[in-house]
Amino acid sequence: MLFQVRMDVSIPAHLSETEVNDLKNREKALAQQLQQSGKWRHLWRIAGQYANTSIFDVASNEELHNLLLSLPLYPFMQIEVTPLCRHPSSIHDDDR
Amino acid sequence: MLFQVRMDVSIPAHLSETEVNDLKNREKALAQQLQQSGKWRHLWRIAGQYANTSIFDVASNEELHNLLLSLPLYPFMQIEVTPLCRHPSSIHDDDR
Amino acid sequence: MLFQVRMDVSIPAHLSETEVNDLKNREKALAQQLQQSGKWRHLWRIAGQYANTSIFDVASNEELHNLLLSLPLYPFMQIEVTPLCRHPSSIHDDDR
Amino acid sequence: MLFQVRMDVSIPAHLSETEVNDLKNREKALAQQLQQSGKWRHLWRIAGQYANTSIFDVASNEELHNLLLSLPLYPFMQIEVTPLCRHPSSIHDDDR
Amino acid sequence: MLFQVRMDVSIPAHLSETEVNDLKNREKALAQQLQQSGKWRHLWRIAGQYANTSIFDVASNEELHNLLLSLPLYPFMQIEVTPLCRHPSSIHDDDR
Amino acid sequence: MLFQVRMDVSIPAHLSETEVNDLKNREKALAQQLQQSGKWRHLWRIAGQYANTSIFDVASNEELHNLLLSLPLYPFMQIEVTPLCRHPSSIHDDDR
Amino acid sequence: MLFQVRMDVSIPAHLSETEVNDLKNREKALAQQLQQSGKWRHLWRIAGQYANTSIFDVASNEELHNLLLSLPLYPFMQIEVTPLCRHPSSIHDDDR
Amino acid sequence: MLFQVRMDVSIPAHLSETEVNDLKNREKALAQQLQQSGKWRHLWRIAGQYANTSIFDVASNEELHNLLLSLPLYPFMQIEVTPLCRHPSSIHDDDR
Amino acid sequence: MLFQVRMDVSIPAHLSETEVNDLKNREKALAQQLQQSGKWRHLWRIAGQYANTSIFDVASNEELHNLLLSLPLYPFMQIEVTPLCRHPSSIHDDDR
Amino acid sequence: MLFQVRMDVSIPAHLSETEVNDLKNREKALAQQLQQSGKWRHLWRIAGQYANTSIFDVASNEELHNLLLSLPLYPFMQIEVTPLCRHPSSIHDDDR
Repeated sequence: MLFQVRMDVSIPAHLSETEVNDLKNREKALAQQLQQSGKWRHLWRIAGQYANTSIFDVASNEELHNLLLSLPLYPFMQIEVTPLCRHPSSIHDDDR
Repeated sequence: MLFQVRMDVSIPAHLSETEVNDLKNREKALAQQLQQSGKWRHLWRIAGQYANTSIFDVASNEELHNLLLSLPLYPFMQIEVTPLCRHPSSIHDDDR
Repeated sequence: MLFQVRMDVSIPAHLSETEVNDLKNREKALAQQLQQSGKWRHLWRIAGQYANTSIFDVASNEELHNLLLSLPLYPFMQIEVTPLCRHPSSIHDDDR
Repeated sequence: MLFQVRMDVSIPAHLSETEVNDLKNREKALAQQLQQSGKWRHLWRIAGQYANTSIFDVASNEELHNLLLSLPLYPFMQIEVTPLCRHPSSIHDDDR
Repeated sequence: MLFQVRMDVSIPAHLSETEVNDLKNREKALAQQLQQSGKWRHLWRIAGQYANTSIFDVASNEELHNLLLSLPLYPFMQIEVTPLCRHPSSIHDDDR
Repeated sequence: MLFQVRMDVSIPAHLSETEVNDLKNREKALAQQLQQSGKWRHLWRIAGQYANTSIFDVASNEELHNLLLSLPLYPFMQIEVTPLCRHPSSIHDDDR
Repeated sequence: MLFQVRMDVSIPAHLSETEVNDLKNREKALAQQLQQSGKWRHLWRIAGQYANTSIFDVASNEELHNLLLSLPLYPFMQIEVTPLCRHPSSIHDDDR
Repeated sequence: MLFQVRMDVSIPAHLSETEVNDLKNREKALAQQLQQSGKWRHLWRIAGQYANTSIFDVASNEELHNLLLSLPLYPFMQIEVTPLCRHPSSIHDDDR
Repeated sequence: MLFQVRMDVSIPAHLSETEVNDLKNREKALAQQLQQSGKWRHLWRIAGQYANTSIFDVASNEELHNLLLSLPLYPFMQIEVTPLCRHPSSIHDDDR
Repeated sequence: MLFQVRMDVSIPAHLSETEVNDLKNREKALAQQLQQSGKWRHLWRIAGQYANTSIFDVASNEELHNLLLSLPLYPFMQIEVTPLCRHPSSIHDDDR
């Protein structure tokens, strides 16, 4: 089941550079792991913004919620979730 | 180059059923043609809405504009365009 | 899987009273049928508005979309879909 | 009498981990107590957000206000209250 | 129990003058009847707007909803309902 | 002359408990004094919010401004002022 | 007493040219009469818009409301009223 | 050339009382000087808010920008600029 | 003096094709004439929208207003005007 | 390919004057370098605001993103990106 998720990141100024780099590295590692697993199907950067738009392929709302909660940058994100489903004009079978 | 495009469709009441069906058929035909060409990379239905979120892969803003303008339902659409680019954490090469 | 759905209804003036009553009767019949099936778990009226807030229990986004699309009043609705999941503090087992 | 209440939680960074955990534990205890009493009829997590949507069953606006005010996390919540009433198409008797 | 209700009225152009006057007369008669009953406690005009802000004193959300629904101008109103309760600094006993 | 005033209060975290209690006590004292004088005609709590909706009865915009400015919690308030006047359907003579 | 009033005008397409010209002429005549009386102290066009921002000098909200209601274009206006008062830094005595 | 400018002031808590008073005094002095020069034609307080609405009479956008930038409170202001021009119904010659 | 102007065009359905084409031809002719005169310095299409963003170089707000008012499509436009001035980091002399 | 970019700058209070001046100098140097290269085609100040509206001429979304990211003030900017393309009524050849 597909969900579009927009994540706007804003890291507060009081975190040290080391803390921020650590957060970003752990975020990247987990994001890539989730992409390899197919859960995080697409991840694009929104041009000009510290934000991304992503497509998640999960079994339920619950799974989506827990995945997002597990992201190291989650506490510094504003998140918008849009449930998707297959479009009648889509030619792709797996965009169910 | 990738763009995310949200299209909210609202067809005015004064069009006849025949006109509406004709519009929808021509829209579907063109949408599928553009998907086969790779220009319209992804097309998903937003659950509960007469709207879709799509990913276009085009060479320029100009090409995107002309593609959207060519859609039969264009006059009845509210369109939001978000330019995307490759995310540093993306594992996909072709999400350039 | 649970979704909260808000439906704001606005029926255009050009429909005749007979057409409107027919729409409303068919809407009520389908809504009650879906409630009996457990798909439409809760349906409440928003005080002062021609709107409702509902909880749907469905297997996927797709199923939710098709249910909403099947509602006779769908063409006259503004719909907002919010995906829900079980709250860690909930005491209800079936609010999965 | 039913009210829908949306609570968006945002805990300021200056609180220590101990303080935050204490707040969350006391919040969970009270939330479960209120659910057992029937006052807090439904509590769902909004997928992807540190927010919930709930249904309260109370005797008056006053009672609702005092209940919300008593929540340990109340000072860190943005709250939206929507008064509900029974929908003419509802099949549930107790959704008065 | 008190509710603040804002009503913004917009009467469509296609109604005849007779129909509009009839609506307004019936609206005024019912509004005054409800004020005499104490249900409609306060009714003020918002300066410069075809809108009012009112205070209703009712036993439940249900009663409020049915009262508003009974207003002849209801189909042409945008309504906002805000549940109120007694303020701890209020000196009025009956503003419960 | 009547004005509706909505006051949303948000007290910053850096104030000590003593300072906050002092502010609240002085606020309550002045609010009750103004109510006794008839200037602050109605004061209701908005259910679920640290906010109130009030009706002021003053001789001019100037007087309203100075009253609001004199409130101890003024610096921590977001204020919305709506000028009111007598509604043609009002049965109350003194709602001039 | 001063009020700032913004008026955005939007005349529906179904009115004939004669009706529109008649409305505009009557509007201009009344506006100039009110300016001569000092009630309508300032009237400026908002560049690029069919809208104006004005300063009214009236004795009460009531008087303002009745003046605005008397404008021939009132039914086609979206109106925003902002109550003003003398600024402590103003050097003008009559901007009370 | 006339511009309407709305200035909403919000002074951060970390400034000392001395600093704030100094800012306010310098702001008042400059505001009065600009009013005497005719540049700052009108300055009104928005009732209930730490905000003003003003009319500036300047030769260009550039001059307006530099004037606003020179205000001691500028760094703590949210500013909205609306270009004005003479209204065809205005009876004032100098409201060019 | 420079102004940024955004024009969103929405032509009502009741106009005939001939009327619409005539409007568009006259609009194009005037727009090109104004560009040749230097008044309309830049005109760009917003990708995906029936809208443009333009830079006007005019002597006053008045001149801008009259130019916009003269556009055949003006009655069907939503217009947003933003006054600009030279940026201290600009390397262009004529972007005064 | 052209993009319109609006940048609203807000520098947090905790930065020292030296840090702020250094940021601004580096920002100006890079902005002028990018203008000389033709990438940053237009840069205008929005009158009354610490904001600019700019036109970038770049080969792709990616290039735009990296340019914006390289700006020293980027972390303190709210950025809005609008993709542009040549307007059919434009007389300029290079506004492709």
